[in-house]
Amino acid sequence: MATNENIFPVSVIGLGNMGLAIAAAYLKAGYPTTVWNRSKGKGERLAAEGATVADTHAEALAASSVAVVCLSTYHVVHELLEPLAGELAGKVLINLTSGTPEEARRTAEWAAKHNIAYLDGAIMAIPPMIGAPEALIFYGGTKAVFDTYEPMLKVLGGSTTYLSNDPGVPLLYDLALLTMMYGAWHGHIHAHAMLKTGGISAAEFLPYADSWLRYLITPLLTDPNGAKALDDENYTTDVSNMNTNKLALDHIIRTSAEMDINADWLTPIYTLAAQKVEEGYGADAFTRIIEGMTSKK
Amino acid sequence: MATNENIFPVSVIGLGNMGLAIAAAYLKAGYPTTVWNRSKGKGERLAAEGATVADTHAEALAASSVAVVCLSTYHVVHELLEPLAGELAGKVLINLTSGTPEEARRTAEWAAKHNIAYLDGAIMAIPPMIGAPEALIFYGGTKAVFDTYEPMLKVLGGSTTYLSNDPGVPLLYDLALLTMMYGAWHGHIHAHAMLKTGGISAAEFLPYADSWLRYLITPLLTDPNGAKALDDENYTTDVSNMNTNKLALDHIIRTSAEMDINADWLTPIYTLAAQKVEEGYGADAFTRIIEGMTSKK
Repeated sequence: MATNENIFPVSVIGLGNMGLAIAAAYLKAGYPTTVWNRSKGKGERLAAEGATVADTHAEALAASSVAVVCLSTYHVVHELLEPLAGELAGKVLINLTSGTPEEARRTAEWAAKHNIAYLDGAIMAIPPMIGAPEALIFYGGTKAVFDTYEPMLKVLGGSTTYLSNDPGVPLLYDLALLTMMYGAWHGHIHAHAMLKTGGISAAEFLPYADSWLRYLITPLLTDPNGAKALDDENYTTDVSNMNTNKLALDHIIRTSAEMDINADWLTPIYTLAAQKVEEGYGADAFTRIIEGMTSKK
Repeated sequence: MATNENIFPVSVIGLGNMGLAIAAAYLKAGYPTTVWNRSKGKGERLAAEGATVADTHAEALAASSVAVVCLSTYHVVHELLEPLAGELAGKVLINLTSGTPEEARRTAEWAAKHNIAYLDGAIMAIPPMIGAPEALIFYGGTKAVFDTYEPMLKVLGGSTTYLSNDPGVPLLYDLALLTMMYGAWHGHIHAHAMLKTGGISAAEFLPYADSWLRYLITPLLTDPNGAKALDDENYTTDVSNMNTNKLALDHIIRTSAEMDINADWLTPIYTLAAQKVEEGYGADAFTRIIEGMTSKK
């Protein structure tokens, strides 16, 4: 709960599921809250809880000196806010819209040009978690703006974290974490497709998947020496080298084919490993494939 | 350490890094151990520790009534053992060679036909872990054979686990766990390729990767209700549906391209999600993509 001296009017622009959760959190914390959404009717429940529903986004933005924006795309953000740049000058804009690091950087440049204090954020939580102590929200942009508004930002999540003065960094972390999740999740679904061919249920496999995640995968990916090696571009290994991993990937791909299971996602990974073996790095760590993932050096 | 009544001669066929670790574990536990390897010289250190080095694999197999085989492929296993089927009749064959579930099943059939007691195993550990309490080794095949030889099998790993009378199941679990590992590992390397574009080091990202693995990914993949839903082919969700995941995958793919990062591995995953959206399952859970991974129903 914010202290009284930190209570001031807030406007919330965009009432998708996330925007609704954000506005509800501010109302609950006692902030005079004005809301707006392009399609009408979204604010009705919030109005019953005390929100002011504005007819236009210009009206909503005029109501407060701090606006929290959570729209579908950065394109929509610019479409709505660019015509109002003059009115926003001197105000604070907190943009929680999903997008790319470059979009965040361009929006921050636009805001700076118009004297709008700007923070870009990435919400690593689902709408029902908004307001909870464990809700993780990353911010980037001017540190002084973050420091001034931190109590108000913490209304949305206890794990509110300032990362960088580069406003693209929160969305970069967001993408990195999502990519990790899709790798683990898809590998897990592929594993179950294979297990089904032997009549093994997900329930039977559960204790082994659990141990594997806790005692092999998590330690493998969170070893501080592993992080240092990656940063130092040190690809030596005495455990499992590129040759071994190439063979194992080929083995999974061929066995999946025998089982009539689509393992297409592994082919590009196998290709990266095969390329490194070809280049003479067969004795190096699997992590050296990172070199093949970008043409920039 | 095995008790005296469980001590009997053991032969180890194949002295790659894993075979060497296996033979060393039996010597240490006091088993009279005979070893053989196709290329010579591999058994020298073991001979100094008390092993008998046989000149031929026939001689090695004749020395014990239990043979532990750890060769490069099932093809090599058959090439060496088929001509000796008569001599192996009545003996015990424990095959720890890496291969496919189908290869394990065919080898078990061959052994049964020749009256050879057979267990197929999959080692979920690296050679330095052999003999340790946490070393996980899966077995499949005739339960009575496993029960009789369990103390001797446990010399290789404290987490020795009998899974199924289907001798293909240990290698099926092996493949499933490896697939999970490659998904998580490759996602992690892709994440670091992206983070590098913003100058974020692996060391800086470490605490976030750690929390994400422990508090989001592991719970997501080890939820007993999730396992039950997968077994029941129940793809309802109220958290993150196929439309949302398709958009997120597209977002990662497009942003990676902007960053000049190879995200080819995500294209087949995106395609599976897009296919399900096309079929009208946009409101269902991401796990429904499992349907698109096999043409068998």
